[in-house]
Amino acid sequence: MSKTAAIIGGGVIGGGWAARFALNGWNVQVFDPDPQAERKIAEVMGNARRSMPGLTDVALPEEGTISFHASIVEAVAGASWIQESVPERLDIKHKTFAKVQAACAPDAVIGSSTSGFKPSELQQGAARPEQIMVAHPFNPVYLLPLVELVPGNDNTGLLVEKAMTMLSALGMYPLHLKKEIDAHVADRFLEAVWREALWLVKDGIASTEEIDNAIRYGFGIRWAQMGLFETYRVAGGEAGMKHFMAQFGPCLSWPWTKLMDVPEFTDELVDLIAGQSDAQSGMHSIRELERIRDNNLVTMMRGLKTQDWGAGALMNAHEKQMRAGTVLAARADEIEDPAAPVLTVHRAVPLDWVDYNGHMNEARYLHAFGDATDRFMEMIGCDAAYIASGGSYFTAETHIRHLDEAHAGDVIEVTTRVLAGAGKKMHLWHEMRIGERLVATGEHFLLHVSLATRKPSAPSPEIEAALARFAQAQATLPQPDGAGRAVGAPR
Amino acid sequence: MSKTAAIIGGGVIGGGWAARFALNGWNVQVFDPDPQAERKIAEVMGNARRSMPGLTDVALPEEGTISFHASIVEAVAGASWIQESVPERLDIKHKTFAKVQAACAPDAVIGSSTSGFKPSELQQGAARPEQIMVAHPFNPVYLLPLVELVPGNDNTGLLVEKAMTMLSALGMYPLHLKKEIDAHVADRFLEAVWREALWLVKDGIASTEEIDNAIRYGFGIRWAQMGLFETYRVAGGEAGMKHFMAQFGPCLSWPWTKLMDVPEFTDELVDLIAGQSDAQSGMHSIRELERIRDNNLVTMMRGLKTQDWGAGALMNAHEKQMRAGTVLAARADEIEDPAAPVLTVHRAVPLDWVDYNGHMNEARYLHAFGDATDRFMEMIGCDAAYIASGGSYFTAETHIRHLDEAHAGDVIEVTTRVLAGAGKKMHLWHEMRIGERLVATGEHFLLHVSLATRKPSAPSPEIEAALARFAQAQATLPQPDGAGRAVGAPR
Repeated sequence: MSKTAAIIGGGVIGGGWAARFALNGWNVQVFDPDPQAERKIAEVMGNARRSMPGLTDVALPEEGTISFHASIVEAVAGASWIQESVPERLDIKHKTFAKVQAACAPDAVIGSSTSGFKPSELQQGAARPEQIMVAHPFNPVYLLPLVELVPGNDNTGLLVEKAMTMLSALGMYPLHLKKEIDAHVADRFLEAVWREALWLVKDGIASTEEIDNAIRYGFGIRWAQMGLFETYRVAGGEAGMKHFMAQFGPCLSWPWTKLMDVPEFTDELVDLIAGQSDAQSGMHSIRELERIRDNNLVTMMRGLKTQDWGAGALMNAHEKQMRAGTVLAARADEIEDPAAPVLTVHRAVPLDWVDYNGHMNEARYLHAFGDATDRFMEMIGCDAAYIASGGSYFTAETHIRHLDEAHAGDVIEVTTRVLAGAGKKMHLWHEMRIGERLVATGEHFLLHVSLATRKPSAPSPEIEAALARFAQAQATLPQPDGAGRAVGAPR
Repeated sequence: MSKTAAIIGGGVIGGGWAARFALNGWNVQVFDPDPQAERKIAEVMGNARRSMPGLTDVALPEEGTISFHASIVEAVAGASWIQESVPERLDIKHKTFAKVQAACAPDAVIGSSTSGFKPSELQQGAARPEQIMVAHPFNPVYLLPLVELVPGNDNTGLLVEKAMTMLSALGMYPLHLKKEIDAHVADRFLEAVWREALWLVKDGIASTEEIDNAIRYGFGIRWAQMGLFETYRVAGGEAGMKHFMAQFGPCLSWPWTKLMDVPEFTDELVDLIAGQSDAQSGMHSIRELERIRDNNLVTMMRGLKTQDWGAGALMNAHEKQMRAGTVLAARADEIEDPAAPVLTVHRAVPLDWVDYNGHMNEARYLHAFGDATDRFMEMIGCDAAYIASGGSYFTAETHIRHLDEAHAGDVIEVTTRVLAGAGKKMHLWHEMRIGERLVATGEHFLLHVSLATRKPSAPSPEIEAALARFAQAQATLPQPDGAGRAVGAPR
């Protein structure tokens, strides 16, 4: 099978398709009369190259070539997939398909990125209507898997099968609609929400920002993992989907949206939906679905937390307040006895730290010790402001003894000792406990660096002094058991 | 301030409130005539205890008590927050408020979990209307931050301020609506989508599962982090929000949803929304927003991947196909020369592996080495099926030399050597390279264990044989530089 795709019409969507194909090893041939097309696609490619390769845990194949062509004839030569992303005007699309079909292979797939037109409309007057189908992606095309694949009655099953296979091979999810409808499926929801949102802003109920927050701090996170019906199935509880619908059926006649053309709420409709929901999710009990949902929410929310965005930014702000009330000292000078090991981590093991062995994954031991190091750095003055000014510590060497298991929900505490701390060097010793139980030790050798040169450099005098205070006070303590040990060395 | 909350009406929502309060250190007093209430709330508490404590990176305060009471009078005694979650019938809610206000502190907040009623409706005939406001949460209440806080005209600013402060202290986001409306904000969107979804199922366009997939593989993931308007602002590109609206304005008159009561598309409306969008997101350029969005999507999708759910399950299935085509051997017996180090990781560094120093975080070195170990275990027969049968390897000791930096997008390769492998013991040596550049080494000592007893045990003869094959073939190779080294030891 040829691995050449033709992109007719660049821009955000066409460029996103180009990126999806090229980063999966396809050669991409672009036609777009816009003199800005090359720049626009280059920008999308830039975004795709930084975000898409690491998304999977397997390296992508070698990137394909991207070439720009002066005519549709040139662009479609040798292409087994032709993607049309020209403006949403039927006359323009018809003209484009005529030119494409005059030159392309008859067994190539011609996909249209149209948001709204039905395949039967796109196929009007085409030389080979069976070759044209809706393949509607979602922005950013190089990351989001959904493609609505809508063939018309004229399409041959064979070509649709081929299209499904090709899209799956690109890591996408082709949603094959058996029946055509304006705006397909997803955009009908987006349009309904858009219309309701326009009312809310127009009527002064909420601002665009409040509306975005109402979505992303609530049902948006739920929908990212279970969608609409499965979410409601869980909310319905043991009583099941029928019960849930019966409960909310009456709302259909209430003024809960300005969009009032509602379907009649009949037993047939209830049975239809409850039956489909059973087929979809019936293999999981409600309790199981609740746990699955919570695992997903925790994982996504903690992910957003690392990005300090959306619900994750909320959590970070909340934690600042929480820390204030905790046993964790804010700065080293608050610590009266520098000879005592410093408490640097006090947290519960989150659900997303657990692996297939049912316990905290080995990498999370270093994650927690790394947090302990960060916290200690903060205490001695190597905080966000200092790091922004160009200095930081890099870990050069790590030794971990995994002495015992930790499980989700266990509260772990890490105490930190300074084995040595002078000049550029910082030699730390962490002990992780659950209650009295020692579960791991971490020995770490760090170097202060200039973030500009990435080379070792002297820390600020303040940091050096704060570090020295601990190093000197703890120098006389007995060497901790396991310090200076090599892997596999006899006890 | 008293830390006692009264929960009037248990069930999924009341129970979720109880969990949110109790796990934040509040004492919770429950009233619910349902004999099942205690069991139902215990189940919600079980879910909350496993998912909520690790969500934050700071340990939660000591859990408060939960007590059940025979009367509203008892339940509200000493409570500074009273949350009503009784059935959605105005007469029931009015009766409940009357009993509550006859016994509760006049300066306590009375919040209602109502999905649809306006505060003015709730306050009708109340002794102290100013005490009653809508506080509408989202399921699961112990994880999702959104609460729609809607005071009526009768509410005093002081009590609303107090409510805002209390909700924020619970880690929630109170969305304070200045103007009341049926179903508040979020549920109006849910209702619009629900109505459209009923049409799609009824008309046989898509099944409940296809609809859920259309949401969670596409815009659902976007909405989890940016919501509606900011997402469209990004889609609009440099041309900005006005351009985006002009482009999609006409659709309002198209049959893209069955919900046709649309607002008039005037310049005033465009200016209003574009202006609010500028105020909301204007501090970021579109390029910045694209990168922020992509960072968030990658992080959430990779999170779902670890849970093998939704878009993450799609990615895992796709990777199975990708691996088939790669340089990674599936099983040890495919490897002809057991004396050569084995390629066990071949991937790009994802965006969510990078930390504040702008390079791959130290914990991700162990993450990658852990993946390499997992892959090698798989190759010698310690795969998912074997692990399900009750045997696995646990890492006892780790030594990492962080020799050089790795950045997002860098393709890392890990090769694995067996330093020793006999009986329960497995001593591995990993080398991580970017091209020819050695960026880290990992030395790991593992023990085979029984997952039932969690104690060391002998592996299966097949695994022992496959491991021995490498151990013997590699025994004569020179000891790698850095093996057997202790942290900070001289070179």
